[in-house]
Amino acid sequence: MSTTASALKAPTKLLFGPGPSPVHPRVYEAMRQPIVGHLDPFFFQVNEDIRRGLKTCFGTANEFTMVISGTGSAGMECAVTNFVEPGAKVAVFANGYFSDRLTEMARRHGGDVVRLEKPWGETYTDAEAREFIASTKPAVVAFVQAETSTGAYQPGHAICKAAHEAGALVIADCVTSLGGMPVLVDESGIDIAYSGTQKALGCPPGLAPITCSPRALEWLKARKTTTVSWYLDLKLLLDYYESAHRYHHTAPISMFYALHESLAIITEEGLENRWARHKANHEAFVAGLAEIGVGMLVAEGHRLWTLNTPFVPAGVNDMNVRKKLMAEHSIEIAGGLGPLGGKVFRIGTMGYGSSPENVQLLLGALKDAFQAEGYGK
Amino acid sequence: MSTTASALKAPTKLLFGPGPSPVHPRVYEAMRQPIVGHLDPFFFQVNEDIRRGLKTCFGTANEFTMVISGTGSAGMECAVTNFVEPGAKVAVFANGYFSDRLTEMARRHGGDVVRLEKPWGETYTDAEAREFIASTKPAVVAFVQAETSTGAYQPGHAICKAAHEAGALVIADCVTSLGGMPVLVDESGIDIAYSGTQKALGCPPGLAPITCSPRALEWLKARKTTTVSWYLDLKLLLDYYESAHRYHHTAPISMFYALHESLAIITEEGLENRWARHKANHEAFVAGLAEIGVGMLVAEGHRLWTLNTPFVPAGVNDMNVRKKLMAEHSIEIAGGLGPLGGKVFRIGTMGYGSSPENVQLLLGALKDAFQAEGYGK
Repeated sequence: MSTTASALKAPTKLLFGPGPSPVHPRVYEAMRQPIVGHLDPFFFQVNEDIRRGLKTCFGTANEFTMVISGTGSAGMECAVTNFVEPGAKVAVFANGYFSDRLTEMARRHGGDVVRLEKPWGETYTDAEAREFIASTKPAVVAFVQAETSTGAYQPGHAICKAAHEAGALVIADCVTSLGGMPVLVDESGIDIAYSGTQKALGCPPGLAPITCSPRALEWLKARKTTTVSWYLDLKLLLDYYESAHRYHHTAPISMFYALHESLAIITEEGLENRWARHKANHEAFVAGLAEIGVGMLVAEGHRLWTLNTPFVPAGVNDMNVRKKLMAEHSIEIAGGLGPLGGKVFRIGTMGYGSSPENVQLLLGALKDAFQAEGYGK
Repeated sequence: MSTTASALKAPTKLLFGPGPSPVHPRVYEAMRQPIVGHLDPFFFQVNEDIRRGLKTCFGTANEFTMVISGTGSAGMECAVTNFVEPGAKVAVFANGYFSDRLTEMARRHGGDVVRLEKPWGETYTDAEAREFIASTKPAVVAFVQAETSTGAYQPGHAICKAAHEAGALVIADCVTSLGGMPVLVDESGIDIAYSGTQKALGCPPGLAPITCSPRALEWLKARKTTTVSWYLDLKLLLDYYESAHRYHHTAPISMFYALHESLAIITEEGLENRWARHKANHEAFVAGLAEIGVGMLVAEGHRLWTLNTPFVPAGVNDMNVRKKLMAEHSIEIAGGLGPLGGKVFRIGTMGYGSSPENVQLLLGALKDAFQAEGYGK
């Protein structure tokens, strides 16, 4: 029928980069369902389901759990614009690309940023966290739980404990952990956590989940200065999404449908089963790489289960490998950013894409491409 | 197949409010196509097609035409955060809800806002525009071309001429005009125009088209202060979408697919044919209302073709009418905002929803609902 054949013909790519990740067919089916108005009771019901599902994934009882109508970086900016007042001291744990982005956003909002630098790929010990916070006495602490540029995982318990002792709020970037491994907002003590839909949640990009502790909410309600962003003003968003349902902006309904479906799939699988699946496939991938002598940037026990950062083997050109994988298998993986450019690959095993079959596919394709570069012959 | 049956079951509503508007089946089909990465050449090709299509709809040769990864209000905030520096005088033509929102955003960004107030539903004469700008000497002028709260249309030629004589940049809200009636960016002289996808473009909400004149771009490149928003920083977005393709954020790929399809449909129809269709259906609707004695808030010649604002007839309760339309026909229309609450309806005839059949459907349902309220018996 000519009225339903779209002019667009998108190719099928196997998305094993750092995100977006492969999307479950059910999520696509949900996304194309007829939209309703942004003040329709059905939409608010969908939104309530989403909020409940996100609470489970975040590991929190925070009532203040919702989504921002933008991608993961909008979630980051939302955290900064609401919780970093001009002149506030912001302590950033700086060990990757996304902590640099947090730094940049905090500075743009007038924050007085102090940074504890570590080489990309490393994480912080409890003692380092305590000492940095005790010595800087910040109003806000920011760290990246799941560093998408390095593959490193920083759960955050010690950071949050030290921050709370100093009276600071803690912002955590959970873009690449949510839905694939423990975020544990309440257990760790994170005050503000944000994420994106296109990683381990297995949705297309377009929304940024966010959660705020009662402590953070109390701080926000007492805030005297106006949040510079109107679009990301959490107080206005609360009025829209909570009981008053006061019009704020026209929410991207179709993306809510997609997220609703991906959270339904997570509920069916069980969050802990999903974590176990991500862990097992990550470990199988790492073991397969070890068999051909390829090591990992991040030390064992500090690795993301969602995103793997193997070293580019000696003598291998990373760009040649990536081109070959795309040309021969339609597989997308990514290279390193910044100081890791040319040194590591970034290979996602997350969401719908985390499966034993995909691990074998990736290992086979990588071995083949490494051999073409003269490695392992 | 259990793997493709989604848990979500969205109802079908007839969206004749001020947006979102009905979506063409082809747009839904495009939106569910497999996503690619945000740095994939196919994505940038889709984006280039979108930019070309938007230029046509905006009526501009501006190279700097793109989309923001947020809804229409993100487009507004993008215009403000990039072009309103702290301390800058901003002259706002204030005749509706969205000029109030522009005011609020400009103030949050440190703008020194001066307003020319008019009752909601009215527009400005050329002389009023000239005098206001000449007397206030602003750095930035902001007006709403298509006021979604009132149904009034302000093309903007005189405003832009006066603003340019005063050396000011002009921001125009074109959320409810783009794709349904003349925006004429180049002809009128608008420097920065933004819109949303969920109105006359006929897409789901989720993206904000924006275009900037060479003059605006030059100003932006010379701007000394940093844009407070990183997410909406047009200089960074240019680096991502233009030749360098430097990673900025993960664009909402599926929404780009949807917009790509809706622009393909517009190309097939022809933009001027589409305007004519909107005009004819709007006029038929107004004529049908006149037959039952229902007048319009906005004077003839100043009305949007996309969004109609008939008065609520004497003795009729607007909420009863809206509830009856939803209950009996699944038709969504909206009430008035602010000073127009209870006084007007806001009824969209836009995008895929602008058709003679829908006009008849709306007129029939309204007559019926008015009669139930004792009107026209």
